[in-house]
Amino acid sequence: MKRKSFAGMECSVARTLEVVGEWWSLLILRDAMRGRRRFEEFQDSLGIARNILSRRLKRLVADGLLEKRVYSERPRRYEYRLTDKSRDLFPVIVALMDWGNRWAAPAKGPAMRLIDRATGEPIEPALIDRTTARPVTLRSVGLAPGPGAGRETRAFFASLARHKDAP
Amino acid sequence: MKRKSFAGMECSVARTLEVVGEWWSLLILRDAMRGRRRFEEFQDSLGIARNILSRRLKRLVADGLLEKRVYSERPRRYEYRLTDKSRDLFPVIVALMDWGNRWAAPAKGPAMRLIDRATGEPIEPALIDRTTARPVTLRSVGLAPGPGAGRETRAFFASLARHKDAP
Repeated sequence: MKRKSFAGMECSVARTLEVVGEWWSLLILRDAMRGRRRFEEFQDSLGIARNILSRRLKRLVADGLLEKRVYSERPRRYEYRLTDKSRDLFPVIVALMDWGNRWAAPAKGPAMRLIDRATGEPIEPALIDRTTARPVTLRSVGLAPGPGAGRETRAFFASLARHKDAP
Repeated sequence: MKRKSFAGMECSVARTLEVVGEWWSLLILRDAMRGRRRFEEFQDSLGIARNILSRRLKRLVADGLLEKRVYSERPRRYEYRLTDKSRDLFPVIVALMDWGNRWAAPAKGPAMRLIDRATGEPIEPALIDRTTARPVTLRSVGLAPGPGAGRETRAFFASLARHKDAP
Protein backbone atom coordinates (compact mmCIF):
# COMPACT_ATOMS: atom_id res chain seq x y z
CA MET A 1 0.00 0.00 0.00
CA LYS A 2 1.43 3.29 -1.06
CA ARG A 3 1.08 6.30 1.08
CA LYS A 4 3.22 8.89 2.72
CA SER A 5 4.65 7.53 5.96
CA PHE A 6 3.74 9.44 9.11
CA ALA A 7 6.68 7.92 11.02
CA GLY A 8 8.92 10.93 10.37
CA MET A 9 6.35 13.35 11.73
CA GLU A 10 6.88 14.56 15.27
CA CYS A 11 3.25 14.70 16.31
CA SER A 12 2.08 11.78 18.42
CA VAL A 13 -1.29 11.63 16.68
CA ALA A 14 0.45 11.06 13.35
CA ARG A 15 2.93 8.63 14.87
CA THR A 16 0.12 6.62 16.42
CA LEU A 17 -1.70 6.45 13.10
CA GLU A 18 1.54 5.16 11.58
CA VAL A 19 1.27 2.18 13.94
CA VAL A 20 -2.47 1.58 14.18
CA GLY A 21 -3.89 3.60 11.27
CA GLU A 22 -4.14 0.61 9.01
CA TRP A 23 -7.79 -0.12 8.44
CA TRP A 24 -7.89 -3.57 10.00
CA SER A 25 -5.43 -3.25 12.83
CA LEU A 26 -7.69 -1.37 15.22
CA LEU A 27 -10.54 -3.80 14.57
CA ILE A 28 -8.29 -6.76 15.30
CA LEU A 29 -7.21 -5.09 18.56
CA ARG A 30 -10.84 -4.28 19.36
CA ASP A 31 -11.60 -7.99 18.98
CA ALA A 32 -8.62 -8.94 21.14
CA MET A 33 -9.97 -6.60 23.83
CA ARG A 34 -13.28 -8.45 23.57
CA GLY A 35 -11.53 -11.71 24.35
CA ARG A 36 -10.75 -13.07 20.90
CA ARG A 37 -7.37 -14.78 20.62
CA ARG A 38 -7.33 -17.22 17.74
CA PHE A 39 -6.93 -16.81 14.04
CA GLU A 40 -10.35 -18.34 13.33
CA GLU A 41 -12.03 -16.13 15.91
CA PHE A 42 -10.64 -13.00 14.29
CA GLN A 43 -11.59 -14.29 10.88
CA ASP A 44 -15.17 -15.10 11.93
CA SER A 45 -15.54 -11.70 13.47
CA LEU A 46 -14.00 -9.65 10.69
CA GLY A 47 -14.92 -11.59 7.57
CA ILE A 48 -11.43 -10.81 6.30
CA ALA A 49 -9.37 -12.81 3.79
CA ARG A 50 -6.97 -15.24 5.48
CA ASN A 51 -3.88 -13.81 3.78
CA ILE A 52 -4.76 -10.26 4.81
CA LEU A 53 -5.52 -11.29 8.39
CA SER A 54 -2.28 -13.23 8.50
CA ARG A 55 -0.31 -10.21 7.30
CA ARG A 56 -2.01 -7.86 9.77
CA LEU A 57 -1.40 -10.23 12.70
CA LYS A 58 2.26 -10.53 11.76
CA ARG A 59 2.62 -6.76 11.66
CA LEU A 60 0.82 -6.37 15.00
CA VAL A 61 3.19 -8.91 16.56
CA ALA A 62 6.22 -7.16 15.02
CA ASP A 63 5.01 -3.84 16.43
CA GLY A 64 4.62 -5.33 19.90
CA LEU A 65 0.83 -4.95 19.90
CA LEU A 66 0.10 -8.66 20.02
CA GLU A 67 2.08 -11.50 21.51
CA LYS A 68 2.03 -14.87 19.78
CA ARG A 69 1.82 -17.81 22.18
CA VAL A 70 1.62 -21.54 21.70
CA TYR A 71 -1.61 -22.88 23.18
CA SER A 72 -1.43 -26.40 21.80
CA GLU A 73 1.64 -28.54 21.10
CA ARG A 74 0.05 -31.32 19.00
CA PRO A 75 -0.99 -29.94 16.67
CA ARG A 76 1.08 -26.84 17.26
CA ARG A 77 -1.28 -23.87 17.44
CA TYR A 78 -0.90 -20.25 18.38
CA GLU A 79 -3.02 -17.59 19.90
CA TYR A 80 -2.57 -13.83 20.00
CA ARG A 81 -2.63 -11.97 23.28
CA LEU A 82 -2.76 -8.30 24.11
CA THR A 83 0.40 -6.63 25.42
CA ASP A 84 0.79 -3.64 27.75
CA LYS A 85 1.31 -1.55 24.62
CA SER A 86 -1.96 -2.59 23.03
CA ARG A 87 -3.94 -2.62 26.28
CA ASP A 88 -3.01 1.04 26.50
CA LEU A 89 -4.99 1.60 23.30
CA PHE A 90 -8.21 0.90 25.19
CA PRO A 91 -9.05 4.63 25.52
CA VAL A 92 -8.68 4.99 21.73
CA ILE A 93 -11.15 2.14 21.16
CA VAL A 94 -13.56 3.53 23.74
CA ALA A 95 -13.36 7.02 22.22
CA LEU A 96 -14.02 5.64 18.73
CA MET A 97 -16.93 3.54 19.98
CA ASP A 98 -18.46 6.38 21.95
CA TRP A 99 -18.29 8.75 19.00
CA GLY A 100 -19.76 6.12 16.68
CA ASN A 101 -22.61 5.40 19.09
CA ARG A 102 -23.48 9.08 18.96
CA TRP A 103 -22.79 10.00 15.35
CA ALA A 104 -22.67 6.88 13.22
CA ALA A 105 -25.02 4.33 14.78
CA PRO A 106 -27.45 2.20 12.75
CA ALA A 107 -30.95 3.72 12.31
CA LYS A 108 -32.33 1.92 15.40
CA GLY A 109 -29.49 3.05 17.64
CA PRO A 110 -26.13 1.67 18.75
CA ALA A 111 -25.61 -2.06 18.38
CA MET A 112 -23.61 -2.26 21.61
CA ARG A 113 -23.15 -0.26 24.74
CA LEU A 114 -20.44 -0.11 27.33
CA ILE A 115 -21.61 -1.16 30.77
CA ASP A 116 -20.02 -1.23 34.18
CA ARG A 117 -19.14 -4.87 34.78
CA ALA A 118 -19.83 -4.59 38.49
CA THR A 119 -23.27 -2.98 38.24
CA GLY A 120 -24.44 -3.65 34.70
CA GLU A 121 -25.27 0.05 34.39
CA PRO A 122 -24.49 1.84 31.10
CA ILE A 123 -21.31 3.89 31.06
CA GLU A 124 -20.80 7.31 29.56
CA PRO A 125 -17.07 7.84 29.12
CA ALA A 126 -15.56 11.24 29.82
CA LEU A 127 -11.98 12.49 29.78
CA ILE A 128 -10.49 14.07 32.86
CA ASP A 129 -7.05 15.09 33.99
CA ARG A 130 -5.77 12.43 36.34
CA THR A 131 -4.20 14.98 38.70
CA THR A 132 -6.90 17.62 39.00
CA ALA A 133 -9.93 15.49 37.96
CA ARG A 134 -11.04 18.41 35.82
CA PRO A 135 -12.72 17.66 32.45
CA VAL A 136 -10.35 17.68 29.48
CA THR A 137 -12.07 19.52 26.64
CA LEU A 138 -11.09 21.31 23.47
CA ARG A 139 -11.49 24.62 25.35
CA SER A 140 -9.70 23.63 28.51
CA VAL A 141 -6.45 22.34 27.07
CA GLY A 142 -3.55 23.85 25.24
CA LEU A 143 -0.32 22.54 23.80
CA ALA A 144 3.25 23.03 24.91
CA PRO A 145 6.49 21.84 23.30
CA GLY A 146 7.93 18.64 24.74
CA PRO A 147 11.52 17.36 24.91
CA GLY A 148 11.27 15.90 21.39
CA ALA A 149 10.17 19.17 19.79
CA GLY A 150 12.00 19.68 16.51
CA ARG A 151 11.58 21.73 13.37
CA GLU A 152 7.98 20.68 12.72
CA THR A 153 6.87 21.45 16.27
CA ARG A 154 8.72 24.78 16.40
CA ALA A 155 7.06 25.78 13.13
CA PHE A 156 3.70 24.91 14.65
CA PHE A 157 4.24 27.09 17.72
CA ALA A 158 5.56 29.92 15.54
CA SER A 159 2.36 29.76 13.48
CA LEU A 160 0.25 29.76 16.66
CA ALA A 161 1.85 33.02 17.68
CA ARG A 162 0.53 34.50 14.42
CA HIS A 163 -3.06 33.28 15.08
CA LYS A 164 -4.42 34.62 18.30
CA ASP A 165 -7.66 32.62 18.23
CA ALA A 166 -5.98 29.24 17.96
CA PRO A 167 -5.72 26.88 20.94
CA MET B 1 -9.05 3.46 -2.83
CA LYS B 2 -10.27 -0.08 -2.70
CA ARG B 3 -11.11 -1.68 0.56
CA LYS B 4 -14.01 -3.41 2.19
CA SER B 5 -16.47 -0.83 3.50
CA PHE B 6 -17.08 -0.88 7.26
CA ALA B 7 -20.37 1.03 6.84
CA GLY B 8 -22.47 -2.13 6.89
CA MET B 9 -20.92 -3.32 10.13
CA GLU B 10 -22.92 -2.76 13.29
CA CYS B 11 -20.04 -2.00 15.61
CA SER B 12 -19.49 1.68 16.33
CA VAL B 13 -15.71 1.34 16.23
CA ALA B 14 -15.94 0.07 12.66
CA ARG B 15 -18.53 2.65 11.71
CA THR B 16 -16.37 5.44 13.08
CA LEU B 17 -13.39 4.20 11.10
CA GLU B 18 -15.61 4.26 8.02
CA VAL B 19 -15.98 8.02 8.55
CA VAL B 20 -12.58 9.06 9.93
CA GLY B 21 -10.37 6.06 9.18
CA GLU B 22 -8.90 7.61 6.07
CA TRP B 23 -5.26 8.35 6.71
CA TRP B 24 -5.43 12.11 6.34
CA SER B 25 -8.84 12.91 7.73
CA LEU B 26 -7.91 12.65 11.40
CA LEU B 27 -4.79 14.75 10.87
CA ILE B 28 -6.83 17.46 9.13
CA LEU B 29 -9.27 17.44 12.05
CA ARG B 30 -6.37 17.51 14.51
CA ASP B 31 -5.13 20.65 12.75
CA ALA B 32 -8.61 22.18 12.80
CA MET B 33 -8.68 21.56 16.56
CA ARG B 34 -5.38 23.42 16.78
CA GLY B 35 -6.93 26.46 15.15
CA ARG B 36 -6.15 25.89 11.48
CA ARG B 37 -8.92 26.88 9.10
CA ARG B 38 -7.57 27.64 5.67
CA PHE B 39 -6.51 25.46 2.79
CA GLU B 40 -2.95 26.84 2.87
CA GLU B 41 -2.66 26.32 6.61
CA PHE B 42 -3.62 22.66 6.28
CA GLN B 43 -1.26 22.27 3.37
CA ASP B 44 1.66 23.86 5.23
CA SER B 45 1.04 21.66 8.20
CA LEU B 46 0.53 18.37 6.40
CA GLY B 47 2.81 18.69 3.38
CA ILE B 48 0.06 17.01 1.37
CA ALA B 49 -0.62 17.33 -2.37
CA ARG B 50 -3.23 19.99 -3.14
CA ASN B 51 -5.53 17.60 -5.00
CA ILE B 52 -5.51 15.09 -2.15
CA LEU B 53 -6.12 17.79 0.45
CA SER B 54 -8.92 19.20 -1.67
CA ARG B 55 -10.57 15.78 -1.94
CA ARG B 56 -10.24 15.09 1.80
CA LEU B 57 -11.71 18.50 2.71
CA LYS B 58 -14.65 17.92 0.37
CA ARG B 59 -15.32 14.55 1.96
CA LEU B 60 -15.05 15.98 5.49
CA VAL B 61 -17.56 18.71 4.54
CA ALA B 62 -19.90 16.12 2.95
CA ASP B 63 -19.71 14.03 6.15
CA GLY B 64 -20.57 17.04 8.31
CA LEU B 65 -17.16 17.10 9.99
CA LEU B 66 -16.14 20.48 8.61
CA GLU B 67 -18.25 23.45 7.64
CA LYS B 68 -17.14 25.56 4.68
CA ARG B 69 -17.61 29.28 5.23
CA VAL B 70 -16.84 32.34 3.14
CA TYR B 71 -14.35 34.57 4.94
CA SER B 72 -13.58 36.97 2.09
CA GLU B 73 -15.88 38.17 -0.69
CA ARG B 74 -13.31 39.72 -3.04
CA PRO B 75 -11.56 37.54 -3.81
CA ARG B 76 -14.03 34.89 -2.65
CA ARG B 77 -12.27 32.65 -0.16
CA TYR B 78 -13.37 29.89 2.17
CA GLU B 79 -12.31 28.54 5.48
CA TYR B 80 -13.15 25.25 7.17
CA ARG B 81 -14.59 25.22 10.66
CA LEU B 82 -15.19 22.42 13.11
CA THR B 83 -18.76 21.25 13.69
CA ASP B 84 -20.36 19.71 16.79
CA LYS B 85 -19.83 16.35 15.13
CA SER B 86 -16.10 16.84 14.69
CA ARG B 87 -15.57 18.64 18.02
CA ASP B 88 -16.90 15.45 19.54
CA LEU B 89 -13.89 13.65 18.09
CA PHE B 90 -11.62 15.49 20.52
CA PRO B 91 -11.37 12.49 22.90
CA VAL B 92 -10.25 10.33 19.95
CA ILE B 93 -7.47 12.79 19.12
CA VAL B 94 -6.44 13.08 22.77
CA ALA B 95 -6.39 9.30 23.16
CA LEU B 96 -4.26 8.90 20.02
CA MET B 97 -1.89 11.63 21.15
CA ASP B 98 -1.57 10.27 24.66
CA TRP B 99 -0.80 6.78 23.42
CA GLY B 100 1.72 8.12 20.92
CA ASN B 101 3.44 10.18 23.61
CA ARG B 102 3.90 7.01 25.61
CA TRP B 103 4.62 4.42 22.93
CA ALA B 104 5.67 6.12 19.72
CA ALA B 105 7.47 9.33 20.66
CA PRO B 106 10.71 10.47 19.02
CA ALA B 107 13.91 9.32 20.79
CA LYS B 108 14.13 12.51 22.89
CA GLY B 109 10.53 12.28 24.06
CA PRO B 110 7.18 13.65 22.95
CA ALA B 111 7.25 16.68 20.66
CA MET B 112 4.17 18.19 22.30
CA ARG B 113 2.30 17.89 25.53
CA LEU B 114 -1.21 18.72 26.57
CA ILE B 115 -1.41 21.39 29.21
CA ASP B 116 -4.20 22.91 31.22
CA ARG B 117 -4.86 26.29 29.60
CA ALA B 118 -5.73 27.87 32.90
CA THR B 119 -2.68 26.75 34.86
CA GLY B 120 -0.13 25.76 32.23
CA GLU B 121 0.36 22.47 34.08
CA PRO B 122 0.77 19.25 32.07
CA ILE B 123 -2.33 17.10 31.74
CA GLU B 124 -2.55 13.36 32.00
CA PRO B 125 -5.83 12.26 30.44
CA ALA B 126 -7.85 9.48 32.01
CA LEU B 127 -11.24 7.98 31.15
CA ILE B 128 -13.98 7.93 33.73
CA ASP B 129 -17.67 7.20 33.72
CA ARG B 130 -19.50 10.53 33.79
CA THR B 131 -22.13 9.27 36.23
CA THR B 132 -20.09 7.39 38.80
CA ALA B 133 -16.68 9.06 38.18
CA ARG B 134 -15.13 5.60 38.33
CA PRO B 135 -12.19 4.84 36.00
CA VAL B 136 -13.16 3.16 32.74
CA THR B 137 -10.65 0.38 32.08
CA LEU B 138 -10.48 -2.80 30.08
CA ARG B 139 -11.21 -4.74 33.27
CA SER B 140 -14.01 -2.55 34.57
CA VAL B 141 -16.25 -2.47 31.53
CA GLY B 142 -18.34 -4.97 29.68
CA LEU B 143 -20.56 -4.86 26.63
CA ALA B 144 -24.33 -5.14 26.33
CA PRO B 145 -26.49 -5.22 23.21
CA GLY B 146 -28.04 -1.88 22.24
CA PRO B 147 -31.26 -1.08 20.35
CA GLY B 148 -29.50 -1.44 16.98
CA ALA B 149 -28.19 -4.94 17.74
CA GLY B 150 -28.63 -7.14 14.68
CA ARG B 151 -27.24 -10.38 13.37
CA GLU B 152 -23.57 -9.40 13.78
CA THR B 153 -24.04 -8.27 17.38
CA ARG B 154 -26.13 -11.30 18.34
CA ALA B 155 -23.43 -13.56 16.90
CA PHE B 156 -20.88 -11.72 19.02
CA PHE B 157 -22.80 -12.22 22.25
CA ALA B 158 -23.45 -15.86 21.38
CA SER B 159 -19.70 -16.36 20.95
CA LEU B 160 -19.04 -14.61 24.28
CA ALA B 161 -21.25 -17.14 26.00
CA ARG B 162 -18.90 -19.83 24.68
CA HIS B 163 -15.78 -18.08 26.06
CA LYS B 164 -15.97 -17.53 29.77
CA ASP B 165 -12.82 -15.45 30.08
CA ALA B 166 -13.88 -12.82 27.55
CA PRO B 167 -15.11 -9.37 28.59
